[in-house]
Amino acid sequence: MQSVYIAGVGMTKFGKDPRPLAEIFSQAAQLALAEAELQEVDALYIGAMNPEEFTGDSNIASLIADAIGLTGVPAIRIETASSAGAAALMAGFQAIASGYYRRVLVLGGEKMTHLSTSATTRILAEVIDKRERQCGATMPALAAMITEKYRQKFRLSESRLENILCSVALKNHANGAHNPLAQFQRLINRDAYFASKFVATPLRLYDCAPITDGAAGVVLSSEKTDVRLSGVGQGTGVPSLQDRDVFTSFPATKIAAARAYRMAETSPQGIDFAEVHDAFTPFEIIDTEDLGFFLPGKGGDAVLDGKTAIDGALPINPSGGLKARGHPVGASGLAQVVEVTKRLRGDSFSKREFKRGLTQSIGGLATNNFVTILQRTDATLVQNQWVPNGAAVAMNQKSRSSPVRESDEGVIETFTILYVTPDGFLPPVALALIRTLDGRLLMAQGEDETQLKIGQEVYLRRIDGFCLFTVKGQIQKVQDAFFKLFRGKTVIPPSKDNRNGGHK
Amino acid sequence: MQSVYIAGVGMTKFGKDPRPLAEIFSQAAQLALAEAELQEVDALYIGAMNPEEFTGDSNIASLIADAIGLTGVPAIRIETASSAGAAALMAGFQAIASGYYRRVLVLGGEKMTHLSTSATTRILAEVIDKRERQCGATMPALAAMITEKYRQKFRLSESRLENILCSVALKNHANGAHNPLAQFQRLINRDAYFASKFVATPLRLYDCAPITDGAAGVVLSSEKTDVRLSGVGQGTGVPSLQDRDVFTSFPATKIAAARAYRMAETSPQGIDFAEVHDAFTPFEIIDTEDLGFFLPGKGGDAVLDGKTAIDGALPINPSGGLKARGHPVGASGLAQVVEVTKRLRGDSFSKREFKRGLTQSIGGLATNNFVTILQRTDATLVQNQWVPNGAAVAMNQKSRSSPVRESDEGVIETFTILYVTPDGFLPPVALALIRTLDGRLLMAQGEDETQLKIGQEVYLRRIDGFCLFTVKGQIQKVQDAFFKLFRGKTVIPPSKDNRNGGHK
Repeated sequence: MQSVYIAGVGMTKFGKDPRPLAEIFSQAAQLALAEAELQEVDALYIGAMNPEEFTGDSNIASLIADAIGLTGVPAIRIETASSAGAAALMAGFQAIASGYYRRVLVLGGEKMTHLSTSATTRILAEVIDKRERQCGATMPALAAMITEKYRQKFRLSESRLENILCSVALKNHANGAHNPLAQFQRLINRDAYFASKFVATPLRLYDCAPITDGAAGVVLSSEKTDVRLSGVGQGTGVPSLQDRDVFTSFPATKIAAARAYRMAETSPQGIDFAEVHDAFTPFEIIDTEDLGFFLPGKGGDAVLDGKTAIDGALPINPSGGLKARGHPVGASGLAQVVEVTKRLRGDSFSKREFKRGLTQSIGGLATNNFVTILQRTDATLVQNQWVPNGAAVAMNQKSRSSPVRESDEGVIETFTILYVTPDGFLPPVALALIRTLDGRLLMAQGEDETQLKIGQEVYLRRIDGFCLFTVKGQIQKVQDAFFKLFRGKTVIPPSKDNRNGGHK
Repeated sequence: MQSVYIAGVGMTKFGKDPRPLAEIFSQAAQLALAEAELQEVDALYIGAMNPEEFTGDSNIASLIADAIGLTGVPAIRIETASSAGAAALMAGFQAIASGYYRRVLVLGGEKMTHLSTSATTRILAEVIDKRERQCGATMPALAAMITEKYRQKFRLSESRLENILCSVALKNHANGAHNPLAQFQRLINRDAYFASKFVATPLRLYDCAPITDGAAGVVLSSEKTDVRLSGVGQGTGVPSLQDRDVFTSFPATKIAAARAYRMAETSPQGIDFAEVHDAFTPFEIIDTEDLGFFLPGKGGDAVLDGKTAIDGALPINPSGGLKARGHPVGASGLAQVVEVTKRLRGDSFSKREFKRGLTQSIGGLATNNFVTILQRTDATLVQNQWVPNGAAVAMNQKSRSSPVRESDEGVIETFTILYVTPDGFLPPVALALIRTLDGRLLMAQGEDETQLKIGQEVYLRRIDGFCLFTVKGQIQKVQDAFFKLFRGKTVIPPSKDNRNGGHK
């Protein structure tokens, strides 16, 4: 296989960008081409999640080729939800590795800030399983339910979990303060973190990556440069939460990592630093466990101990991560590669010498993940095979759940109280994954947001395919509760047309 | 470069398909995997144009991987508008050619028939330049304007053009009658053709490919089989019609063809038959000229002479083409590859022995085109280099137009009367590309649909960025005409918000 090198990188200042999407892309392209000292390339690979709905731009590949003055040059748009930038890198890598092209420009970008938060939340939520969306599930809601499950599985007290999440947020904001292209460049302190409002318990506003405009560009080449793309890997996962067997790690990351480590002939121990997908602070913890940096349940200790700080043994998200650098969804997976390349070259704030860095990007609710390993070509590196534990498990991700379930009792598997809701749902909304008596899982919306805990027994009611739960022992309140529900709080039972793949 | 072979192909019955999109994809996947005698593959490459808006399906790559029982397997979605299926094949080809994967499943699909024609027309029209869309331009409208320009450039009488287009339609419907998976399997005659209504003059309903549901699948492998993917090429073109210098051919096809012929070490003379992108009958004529099969302006003679018939010297669209097989936009580019593979193997209706076939797929208004060459591995083939004429021209596609023009007079470069209009525009709508006195082009909407011809002088009026034209000599009618326009006929001057990349 032809070796693939990084010939040039560039990215826009992330944040609110008033320019049209094509101009944002163009700037990233020009920066990367200028660094590579190229006027043109053999092809373009463009990662974008949903420009159709975010900005009304369709046929984006031709549009961008034309906008950057490369009309005629082959251009392909790549999409894997929020990992689209990493997916475009993978496609560009394969194009060079095949020898079909010698130099390609990979771009990733998105424009999101011009829309309302509820509109953006709705578009982002389209990646979620339709049945779960019907209950009002958003990306923060599902991340929150995963977090609650993680806390229970690894027996963390509420305050210890809070401290872990707060530490991730403070660390990444501190790192972002050194990154001139980051959306947020201010330090935050514990008081600010704990003063920030809940989006979906236990996740606060400061646990969630912001809404961002931006683009990143990477020129890949078959000619040797100072940084080599030494390992790439991808894996997919079960789209819906209620069909999963595994909640506290992401099998798609493990599949991707196994492939990338094997190709780069290295292991987690061979990685000097990493940029991982911290769209939510708990994801950074899970990511570092899935990548083999820490044992399951121990990622939190690492951040509390300072191991993942910029001056720690294994810096995680030294650029600020999605949390502080910002998260233009189609750009993030590629922006990580820009950041790692700069750091390997010694261009970034930290003056430590790094030889090998890793990026990890998540698409959707960890359903389409990528791992990329980059290394300095002048470095002497110890090569060692990684023997992944749990990789065999990774392909067996599915529970036996089915859309038809008749049991009317169950137990809360995990839950959240959602305070920032999609259009049509008034906050707060209690959401829970319920394990029914026959062992299956389903998403349901609850009537009482004060009595929830994992293991709590519940009653279930189905209305036109939509599922509601009521905590047992509250039975005397059921009538009142249902009255409250239907009077105007939250329930909008979807019509059959909406559920059957009809046009939204 | 690793050679790439076709290990299995399959496609659904094209037409109206009541199943959800994921099930349609799954059937194509199962057919292709069964033919390849495989249970799984290393990765999936999925072409789809706009499932987000057609069916509300986002994160489609993970969704399809899960739906076909390959959860965990890497899956990437590829999009280049209506050539997405061909683009997915290109990405899959590069993945195998690089040696990174050994076997991949390429899929292309779309579900469209459940929506109204006006909704589908609107979604398809999103690939058009925003300024041109504001005037009411649809894909048939732009195809019609290209056709009118072709007629003028090559001095065809109206009746000769009609005969050419009718011959393409009759031929492709006759071919579709032999294809059990085609949407239309009935012969049509001249009377039926001429009785069909105008969509956009000079194009009738029978000149336009239908709205279709369907999916196609191709397994690519590094292991030798009976059919090899011997050449692939891609090119892009200027997104807007008003920024073009070239109207009667598609430079993106020429770029793609030059690359594919060179890679396959052949020329147009080495091709035995082809499946080309006849989304509109005149496109088949232009395609066969761009591919070097016939000289510019001579493609029409070839169809009238029967050269492109199924028993002719160079069968074009022996499967029925998009016109009769149907056009599920994300599937079409890959369905062509399925058809060519079957014909090379001798599986199709015609029992002639073919050694080498070609497919050509168009994305958008010919802004992102692909050419693929397949050949039997057991055939003795004459290899000869193609020296393309006009390929040097292909990269210089752009006129000097700019969005700001102040001239208030001009000449009609080409035009159409649009009878099937997008939502918000009442038919008929006169659309023309006007060359202003300073030599630039712009799209405008006219007030009089009876007096138009190429070269006619017109006056221009601009209203909030929206441009109207009035034929000279009709000046006494202008006041009446404008009154008519604003009373409720067609003009919906777009707001500034809509024009500036705002959310649609």
